[in-house]
Amino acid sequence: MSQRKLFLLPGDGIGPEITAELEKIIAFMNEKADAGFTVEKGLVGGSAYDAHGVAISDDDMARAMAADAVILAAVGGPKWDNVPYEVRPEAGLLRLRKDMQLFANLRPAICYSALAASSSLKPELVEGLDILIVRELTGGVYFGEPKEIIDLDNGQQRAIDTQVYDTYEIERIASVAFELARTRDNRVCSMEKRNVMKSGLFWNQVVTRVHDEKFSDVKLSHMLADAGGMQLVRAPKQFDVIVTDNLFGDMLSDVAAMLTGSLGMLPSASLGAEDSETGKRKAMYEPVHGSAPDIAGKGIANPLAMIASFAMCLRYSFNMIAEAEALEAAIADVLEEGYRTGDIMAEGCKKVGTAGMGDAVLAAL
Amino acid sequence: MSQRKLFLLPGDGIGPEITAELEKIIAFMNEKADAGFTVEKGLVGGSAYDAHGVAISDDDMARAMAADAVILAAVGGPKWDNVPYEVRPEAGLLRLRKDMQLFANLRPAICYSALAASSSLKPELVEGLDILIVRELTGGVYFGEPKEIIDLDNGQQRAIDTQVYDTYEIERIASVAFELARTRDNRVCSMEKRNVMKSGLFWNQVVTRVHDEKFSDVKLSHMLADAGGMQLVRAPKQFDVIVTDNLFGDMLSDVAAMLTGSLGMLPSASLGAEDSETGKRKAMYEPVHGSAPDIAGKGIANPLAMIASFAMCLRYSFNMIAEAEALEAAIADVLEEGYRTGDIMAEGCKKVGTAGMGDAVLAAL
Ligand SMILES: CC(C)[C@H](C(=O)O)[C@@H](O)C(=O)O
Ligand SMILES: CC(C)[C@H](C(=O)O)[C@@H](O)C(=O)O
Repeated sequence: MSQRKLFLLPGDGIGPEITAELEKIIAFMNEKADAGFTVEKGLVGGSAYDAHGVAISDDDMARAMAADAVILAAVGGPKWDNVPYEVRPEAGLLRLRKDMQLFANLRPAICYSALAASSSLKPELVEGLDILIVRELTGGVYFGEPKEIIDLDNGQQRAIDTQVYDTYEIERIASVAFELARTRDNRVCSMEKRNVMKSGLFWNQVVTRVHDEKFSDVKLSHMLADAGGMQLVRAPKQFDVIVTDNLFGDMLSDVAAMLTGSLGMLPSASLGAEDSETGKRKAMYEPVHGSAPDIAGKGIANPLAMIASFAMCLRYSFNMIAEAEALEAAIADVLEEGYRTGDIMAEGCKKVGTAGMGDAVLAAL
Repeated sequence: MSQRKLFLLPGDGIGPEITAELEKIIAFMNEKADAGFTVEKGLVGGSAYDAHGVAISDDDMARAMAADAVILAAVGGPKWDNVPYEVRPEAGLLRLRKDMQLFANLRPAICYSALAASSSLKPELVEGLDILIVRELTGGVYFGEPKEIIDLDNGQQRAIDTQVYDTYEIERIASVAFELARTRDNRVCSMEKRNVMKSGLFWNQVVTRVHDEKFSDVKLSHMLADAGGMQLVRAPKQFDVIVTDNLFGDMLSDVAAMLTGSLGMLPSASLGAEDSETGKRKAMYEPVHGSAPDIAGKGIANPLAMIASFAMCLRYSFNMIAEAEALEAAIADVLEEGYRTGDIMAEGCKKVGTAGMGDAVLAAL
């Protein structure tokens, strides 16, 4: 059994606590199933800033590049609100995405039936919800230049950000969306603002061409991003796969995540291109939730999104489909059995802390 | 009584039908209360393109500039999906906003109690909801240059949009938000992506400075725009006034509108700066909903958002507060009485068409 190199980045806030639960699962899989995971750990975000004065050190960046998969918990917190822009916690996350060229961000918005009642939407609208948002992650306004604040002659200042998309960037993310749709309900809805943005118009054209040339078996529709936000709130089950740019993806995936009532539960995967020789791809896995500084260190954070992110890692980085499904089933089981951390607590359920939840998943495995 | 010059732009789709109902109300106010409204009408969007080959003619643009208030119904439809980008229907709307310098877009998201049940959110989360979104409307990525699609040397193409904000643009929209907050619950939440965008960082700084210098009595908070979208879905009643940029405002106000279950009901006002000599400001009023081409011409569209937009016009352009309140009360009354167009139909209610609804409001007045 070859070694599987995992690089864990616990980050800030509740990150270390939920990472500890994941480590239990990894150890269990090594012991019981000889899975051959090796684990290294590094620093990112505020914790890296405190140690090294940067949001991720070159050394940790190199280790991330060398790993088979990176698993990051969460970054940020009020402690670092006033550090310089270049070294703010998020800069570590953005450098990982950019340097590893993780252009495809997969954000499933699924509603665990045990949690449908905790959605702010009416349960019948979200019960059984299973959407996949495919967000472009290395382009757009996140990285385009110029990106600056300048002094004008008239004594005023001007802030500029630039949304940039090249043909290949849209082609590759569209292809990922179409390929994934084929493994699901075979429908893709592309969202942009073509009525206002030239990049939206271009996005629409390239996605349509990629569809017509290579994926005409997949059903493609288009929606303006603002209407898309509305439709997510009105009738989320109408969607299968949604493909959209970096900034719209940020907004829309957060709205979609909140709909499920399972925000503390949702994983994500950020994937690079497949190496044509080795067939391997760089990848990073993260929970969708943040670092929750208000509850950090109390042992009450929900580790399930972190564990579900590892299930995505098993699937996409190691092709361990059976193991991924077993882990996802274990998560669904503990919910059915009534285990709840504080964030998803409901009447009649068993309240547990971070470690209690991790142990419950281990037991279910 | 001085003349009050209204310029109506029915636009496309259901626009002409709902405008006809508004005209009844205006005629009524002229007859019964000697309100002195004069009405001119023009073309915008697809209807202007069909007549003149542009999304708004210079002539109609001049009449808009000369009016005391412009009232626009809706633009767009599949018929014009393939007209050149420069003359697409939305270009008429954008030109009106830009040339009239309507930088402050006010989008109330209120939930009529008679309609709380039709929200996709649980009724207790939206009952009594009353948020005001103040969206910057003449800057940001909507108008920044460069905005283009270019050919690269490598055979690829590149699309570029530019988000630009100068100090004064943020100062004036922040001031509007703070002033309006003082007439409400005195709280403003500013939303941007300062963790990713320089314009977000700058927005945050300028809003904070304007607050500290001139509006320190108002409670100011900041939220990342993606978290803001989530919070709107989770617990919308936590907000009073939200101030945000053009693109985030587009997304967030649509999500907020959908929450209310009253999308077909919501008005908006777009205001320019006050003229320091005359005290007058340019203004345009529009329903938040679109042109609904699928139901156009059938006499079933809901005219209430258009009528509610006129109530905003009475308030903001003519300071006719009592009349605005009477009109808003008439809308709430017809809903309480059970009148419903198809879009908001519920069991046990009286289904009416566009004209039936307009007549019901007239009767309630
Ligand atoms: C933390 C932040 C930089 C990040 C983003 O904006 O992409 C986050 O919101 C996300 O969605 O992963
Ligand atoms: C029609 C379109 C150009 C417009 C916008 O994006 O501003 C609309 O969505 C709105 O919100 O008024």
